[in-house]
Amino acid sequence: VARLRVPRGKAARARRPAALSFTLGRVAQVTGGEVHGDAGLRLTGVAPLESAGPHELSWAVDERRTADAARSRAGALLVADHRVASGKPCIVVEQPALAMARWLEIHRPVARPKPGVARGAFVDRTARLGKGVSIAAGATVSAGARIGAGSVIGAGVFIGRGVEIGEDCRLDPNAAVLEGCRIGARCVLQAGAVVGSDGFGYVWDGERHRKIPQLGIVRIEDDVEIGANAAIDRATLGETVVGRGSRIDNLVQVGHNVVIGENSVLCGQAGIGGSSRLGRGVTLAGQVGVSDHVTIGDGAVLTGQAGIARQARVNAGAILSGMPALPHREFLKRAALLGRLEAALARLAALEEKVRQMAKGGGPWSSGSAKS
Amino acid sequence: VARLRVPRGKAARARRPAALSFTLGRVAQVTGGEVHGDAGLRLTGVAPLESAGPHELSWAVDERRTADAARSRAGALLVADHRVASGKPCIVVEQPALAMARWLEIHRPVARPKPGVARGAFVDRTARLGKGVSIAAGATVSAGARIGAGSVIGAGVFIGRGVEIGEDCRLDPNAAVLEGCRIGARCVLQAGAVVGSDGFGYVWDGERHRKIPQLGIVRIEDDVEIGANAAIDRATLGETVVGRGSRIDNLVQVGHNVVIGENSVLCGQAGIGGSSRLGRGVTLAGQVGVSDHVTIGDGAVLTGQAGIARQARVNAGAILSGMPALPHREFLKRAALLGRLEAALARLAALEEKVRQMAKGGGPWSSGSAKS
Amino acid sequence: VARLRVPRGKAARARRPAALSFTLGRVAQVTGGEVHGDAGLRLTGVAPLESAGPHELSWAVDERRTADAARSRAGALLVADHRVASGKPCIVVEQPALAMARWLEIHRPVARPKPGVARGAFVDRTARLGKGVSIAAGATVSAGARIGAGSVIGAGVFIGRGVEIGEDCRLDPNAAVLEGCRIGARCVLQAGAVVGSDGFGYVWDGERHRKIPQLGIVRIEDDVEIGANAAIDRATLGETVVGRGSRIDNLVQVGHNVVIGENSVLCGQAGIGGSSRLGRGVTLAGQVGVSDHVTIGDGAVLTGQAGIARQARVNAGAILSGMPALPHREFLKRAALLGRLEAALARLAALEEKVRQMAKGGGPWSSGSAKS
Repeated sequence: VARLRVPRGKAARARRPAALSFTLGRVAQVTGGEVHGDAGLRLTGVAPLESAGPHELSWAVDERRTADAARSRAGALLVADHRVASGKPCIVVEQPALAMARWLEIHRPVARPKPGVARGAFVDRTARLGKGVSIAAGATVSAGARIGAGSVIGAGVFIGRGVEIGEDCRLDPNAAVLEGCRIGARCVLQAGAVVGSDGFGYVWDGERHRKIPQLGIVRIEDDVEIGANAAIDRATLGETVVGRGSRIDNLVQVGHNVVIGENSVLCGQAGIGGSSRLGRGVTLAGQVGVSDHVTIGDGAVLTGQAGIARQARVNAGAILSGMPALPHREFLKRAALLGRLEAALARLAALEEKVRQMAKGGGPWSSGSAKS
Repeated sequence: VARLRVPRGKAARARRPAALSFTLGRVAQVTGGEVHGDAGLRLTGVAPLESAGPHELSWAVDERRTADAARSRAGALLVADHRVASGKPCIVVEQPALAMARWLEIHRPVARPKPGVARGAFVDRTARLGKGVSIAAGATVSAGARIGAGSVIGAGVFIGRGVEIGEDCRLDPNAAVLEGCRIGARCVLQAGAVVGSDGFGYVWDGERHRKIPQLGIVRIEDDVEIGANAAIDRATLGETVVGRGSRIDNLVQVGHNVVIGENSVLCGQAGIGGSSRLGRGVTLAGQVGVSDHVTIGDGAVLTGQAGIARQARVNAGAILSGMPALPHREFLKRAALLGRLEAALARLAALEEKVRQMAKGGGPWSSGSAKS
Repeated sequence: VARLRVPRGKAARARRPAALSFTLGRVAQVTGGEVHGDAGLRLTGVAPLESAGPHELSWAVDERRTADAARSRAGALLVADHRVASGKPCIVVEQPALAMARWLEIHRPVARPKPGVARGAFVDRTARLGKGVSIAAGATVSAGARIGAGSVIGAGVFIGRGVEIGEDCRLDPNAAVLEGCRIGARCVLQAGAVVGSDGFGYVWDGERHRKIPQLGIVRIEDDVEIGANAAIDRATLGETVVGRGSRIDNLVQVGHNVVIGENSVLCGQAGIGGSSRLGRGVTLAGQVGVSDHVTIGDGAVLTGQAGIARQARVNAGAILSGMPALPHREFLKRAALLGRLEAALARLAALEEKVRQMAKGGGPWSSGSAKS
């Protein structure tokens, strides 16, 4: 994996603000860490352990990365314990990954587009835009919509009638927030994300699946991120809710009337059926499927591809795996037991034969007399 | 979950037609039900049992909701049996959910945009638009396309060359119908849905995966709904078909040359490989995977995350679960048997030991003589 | 499935270049095959075996299709062995499907839009467009972007700042390539595909999931195809890479910093977590889930819905199935063993009873003395 440090060609230089050189001391100041080595050491970029060069800063999450850190060509490291750095210049902080995130936020601020409405954007005259809002070409802002100060609306984004978007949001190209939905402050909707699609609600009337009008909205609280091409359905009546600080990855599906608590994490391609309720700090790993009317307690974790049947309840703090989902330990145990099944069936047949022989004979038997 | 009844602020009022008050008698008239209680009772909105207030109408699907109905603060109920209403004013109808859908259709008609082509829409001069068609800003209608009367084409929608769209369709923002595909009447394509992407067809020529030109089309029959960010591939040759009245949820994938019968239901994130054929009234629950060249009979149900191997046949009316898929009862039975496996292995070991002891000894044994 | 040959109505005629008639000899010339029968036989179209009529060419992949070929009404066939054609006129070639792909490429060339920037496209004045580039209405090409000669940019496509697109690419409607990403030559991005969404990277700081700035890019090498509504995340630092000739189907998710080798195939709805590495010629079947930090060797195959746990290693050439994934043979064996489990538990109980009886008695026993 190549590094960022040396942009190639003009286009690459246009892409990011120029990488400025910095000292190890400056990084320590920003991250609140302690320098081991020369605080004046000058670095020019940041890269992962595997690809970092001698003028780049890297990081090691914990002591399991000690060997990788020793092998790395990185010029300096962010570490939790100076021994992990194996003698390289380093900054000791409590959480190296967090420190790295902080440093990157400051060192490489994201380029913001100029405020204002681009030529080729379609903004209804009854829409209200806060201070510093930027609307790109091809975007549509419908009647009665309100967009909070500092929000950036990308090319081709659709904002429906009466939608409310909070301050400092970022809506990437071709995202859509449909009629009446509400997005809090500091939210990110990645490219192609859809908020407010109709819930999947039908009633069979004897001849056809009759559509139940989907009249509710989606309410996304503050500080939520929604991934590329994800889809969040509006409620039939009332609200579908994504709680403050939750993180939703690409291609995730959230059904109508679902309520997701604060700081939950839904990884790529997870899906949730209608009317299910997730607590706070719940984790759905990739491709997890949660059926409808399920209740999931605070802090529960569903591992990759786990499946939860309709109307099930998952206890707070539970860790479940597999389909049908089991406690993770039980899931692992069953997988191990299955590995012993073939031999067990052979042992059963041998034992049956041995008992048959014993039953036939009348006297004492040696174990060798049974056919294997 | 909040209710719809009280719109908050100007934007919310702009979003939906004002909620008018109505009488219980009016609901009975529309739904063909029988009033128990005061037909003149005045209500102002509709909400689920859990969130309905004293001026709102709610509904209880069946008698399993009796306790919830009794607890509910709803002013009146749609029920199938008046006893479910626990003394509350109610309307007795055969199918409460269906009656509710009918009432919502009438009580809250969907706002339709003004007919006409918006400034900022790109409509080829050889395209033909029926009466009352509405085309939003940023939409493209290509050469030779035809759009039936009353259809609503959202912002950023793409309609390719020679596409035919029936009457009274709704294409939500950023949906795309690619070259030559055909959509029946009264269809809904939700935001970001793609109809007519290339089939995933390649032939390995010894050096590379050579693309097989994808020259067929997709034909969507009448009254079909396709969810947000779903993708329906065109046929290699001929047609991919979605039968009349079928319902396809968000993020569903339908491969090239697939044929789906009438009134089938494909839930969120289900996927179908190339050339598979589904009968009428088939249900694929969420995240179901159907491989290529599979045949599925009328009315079959695949439960959540079930997986069907290539070239398999699923009988009409079958209910299958798991991967590899089994009849649902067998799937449940195996899950239960697995729960007994650990104990069974222990019993087998104990029995082996007991038989070993018996074989060693010569006389009569008590069961207590075997080690556990 | 209907055939392409007879376009219906004006619109259908507009859609594709008119189907010209051709001789069997011409097909043999293009595909390098040998005619059996009349080389002057005139045909008017191409269709699959099941739907081909007497004036259409079809193909049979191998001898397993002999019966279908005999039943087919096709006028002539592409086959690997003339006996498969059952007496029909045919062309014998090594790989019939490959020959058909070649013939279709020549017989039905894809219509290309006129070069140039459409009215209603937004192209920054610092962007550089190669010769013959076509940009449709509603597309955006941002500052510093470069688009190679002959590339076709569809309606509503977004090309971010500093993006580089190679020659002869095709970007279908509403696809998006975000800031700084690079696409090689002859690539296809289908409708709604997103390249360069932010990686799903957060650090919990004790109060919230703090976003790690995602500063890397996606680099797509030459001859890659990416399906409708797929999403490829940019690297946190460095590059996410899709190797030359790889084929990615609809709705696939590729996480940050993933590296995919040449000529790999990712089928519909497969997903790959962050930092995983796939070798060359790897196949992920539909809905496969690969967790993060996984390594997969060259030529490995994961069958439908297989799940690979984080940090796992898959050997080159391995074929794995199920979740947790097992070697495919082992997976099949375990499924078969499970089918015997119920009977085995009954046998175990019977044997326990028999041994109990034996233990109780003192003399010789007939096998009939044990309860079944």
